[in-house]
Amino acid sequence: MGLTYKDAGVDIDAKMEAIARVKARAASSLGAQAGPIGHFGGTFRLAAGGERVLVASADGVGTKLRLAFVLGGDAHEGVGRDLVHHCVNDILALGATPLFFLDYFATGKLDPDVMTAVVGGLADACAANGLALLGGETAEMPDMYAPGEYDLAGFIVGEVDEARVVDGSSIHPGDVVVGLPSDGLHTNGYSLARRILGLTGDPAADRERLTATAPFTSGQETIGEALMRGHRSYLSDVRPFLADGIVHGMAHITGGGLPDNLPRTLPDDCIAVLDPTRWPVPPIIDYLVERGEIGVVEKYRVFNMGIGYVLIVPNTAADMTIASLPGGMLIGEIIARTTSDESAVQGLIC
Amino acid sequence: MGLTYKDAGVDIDAKMEAIARVKARAASSLGAQAGPIGHFGGTFRLAAGGERVLVASADGVGTKLRLAFVLGGDAHEGVGRDLVHHCVNDILALGATPLFFLDYFATGKLDPDVMTAVVGGLADACAANGLALLGGETAEMPDMYAPGEYDLAGFIVGEVDEARVVDGSSIHPGDVVVGLPSDGLHTNGYSLARRILGLTGDPAADRERLTATAPFTSGQETIGEALMRGHRSYLSDVRPFLADGIVHGMAHITGGGLPDNLPRTLPDDCIAVLDPTRWPVPPIIDYLVERGEIGVVEKYRVFNMGIGYVLIVPNTAADMTIASLPGGMLIGEIIARTTSDESAVQGLIC
Repeated sequence: MGLTYKDAGVDIDAKMEAIARVKARAASSLGAQAGPIGHFGGTFRLAAGGERVLVASADGVGTKLRLAFVLGGDAHEGVGRDLVHHCVNDILALGATPLFFLDYFATGKLDPDVMTAVVGGLADACAANGLALLGGETAEMPDMYAPGEYDLAGFIVGEVDEARVVDGSSIHPGDVVVGLPSDGLHTNGYSLARRILGLTGDPAADRERLTATAPFTSGQETIGEALMRGHRSYLSDVRPFLADGIVHGMAHITGGGLPDNLPRTLPDDCIAVLDPTRWPVPPIIDYLVERGEIGVVEKYRVFNMGIGYVLIVPNTAADMTIASLPGGMLIGEIIARTTSDESAVQGLIC
Repeated sequence: MGLTYKDAGVDIDAKMEAIARVKARAASSLGAQAGPIGHFGGTFRLAAGGERVLVASADGVGTKLRLAFVLGGDAHEGVGRDLVHHCVNDILALGATPLFFLDYFATGKLDPDVMTAVVGGLADACAANGLALLGGETAEMPDMYAPGEYDLAGFIVGEVDEARVVDGSSIHPGDVVVGLPSDGLHTNGYSLARRILGLTGDPAADRERLTATAPFTSGQETIGEALMRGHRSYLSDVRPFLADGIVHGMAHITGGGLPDNLPRTLPDDCIAVLDPTRWPVPPIIDYLVERGEIGVVEKYRVFNMGIGYVLIVPNTAADMTIASLPGGMLIGEIIARTTSDESAVQGLIC
């Protein structure tokens, strides 16, 4: 039996159950201006906002942070950029373009150089993606974080014409699934990756492992560099497709992987059938899966497996979409759900 | 020599320096729609938003969390409510009413009951203050947090008519300072309070100290109950004063206390002169100051000292404001700054 995410201390099912309990309680706070909860971002219609709706999302970068603690230097700027890109992609999945961003940086004892690197990375990514870093909170909390460690969260607000919200409702059987490549793990699966690689938190030992040349590279890339590759922003590539209503649904592939994220944009009567032979898996993910003997279902839930973002478009638009989207690949199709108990996960990987 | 916040591991000056460095880098991300950084919230003008501007803020509750870890039960709901109230007050200080909220809840191993209590407290506070809990991020990060511990951040977005943004620009000498009472420490000064009380993080010993009856109470309140008193929301009390433009400036008294927060709303040519004999200090704060032998300057910077929120109004409106605001107290006045090097802190406490 191979390692599972649960072995590494992350229980996705328990989290989903807790979130379901919380949602019921949060429902009492939702007025007529708030949209449904559970998409990649929450929507909010301004009373005086005309036909624009706001889309908001909150995120972190998970235990990729622990690698930045060990590697230092540019890795701190990297996780800052990662966080902005993660948030940008989340609201992009609803068709929204970003307006502004705020961060939360929490640490035990403030190291001005580290904090400046992290927030500097955030600021650069905000500027490059055309959104304003409007503010944030820097919390110095003794006894909460070990020396040299910090946590980081981001909050994004974007907007979209109400008529152009991409919520998957127009998806129907016969549509095709177009995948965009990830550059590596992005910001998910790091607790399992650290477990597989035997990273225990001992700085010297972890650093030695991370600075070793990766066995899967023909060049000089280290394991650490392969792991720290950035979370891609899909904004500039996807934005041109949002104006003409051609896109029926989109998904940002993060925690939970393709099986948990792709169904979030699917109507109840549709499932996605993907053909995993149609896209390459990043060497670092292949390496982790092989070394950890990760099971087939588990690996698709923990890692993005090479697909960072998904668009669902009409069959007739498939060729144009793939030709126009850098890296775009036809990876599957939408079919009707035939039995009520068939889970999307079963339909996804076949 | 008494204890200082720096002794307890919190260096406000180092934080302010780091933030100044980051601000310069963040400036490159700010387009024409973003307002100035450094107020209680960031402002953003929507292209199609008419005369409304959005106001956003991010915050945490600091190491008050560590007391919730020890006390458990209702304390988890309490810190959830505290976080919403903190955020509501921050954007209120710019004249904004809240629209929606998102949370970030991060823990090592997810405890569904604790998470449900914290987010349930958030949800109740959102409903009571008329804003939508629109979403959030739940992060399970093994090795980042000790068992039973978590961190919590909140993000709020509100709106205000552009002509009614309260930014302090209309403040002039002769205006009066009206204070609203705090209910205790609210969400600041807990690292020093824990140090003063000898709370070391040992659960059994800390619990014994926190469940002892407070020496300053005539009733049955424990030290822990006095410390955990909630962060007040000033929204319902202050909102009626926002419509008629009578309020020249407002400040939410949080980290940095009156000396750091009141000047944020003052024009450069004004200082506030406060008379501390005009308002009562909560017994728990008096107790901490005495027991820790906290210096005069230090205590005003670490604790709110009994003032949770401040309004600056014309002298002619003083009586009406105090009569109409529950708990409102005349605590000082605005005078012209006479020398360029006189700090607001010097002028504040006299």
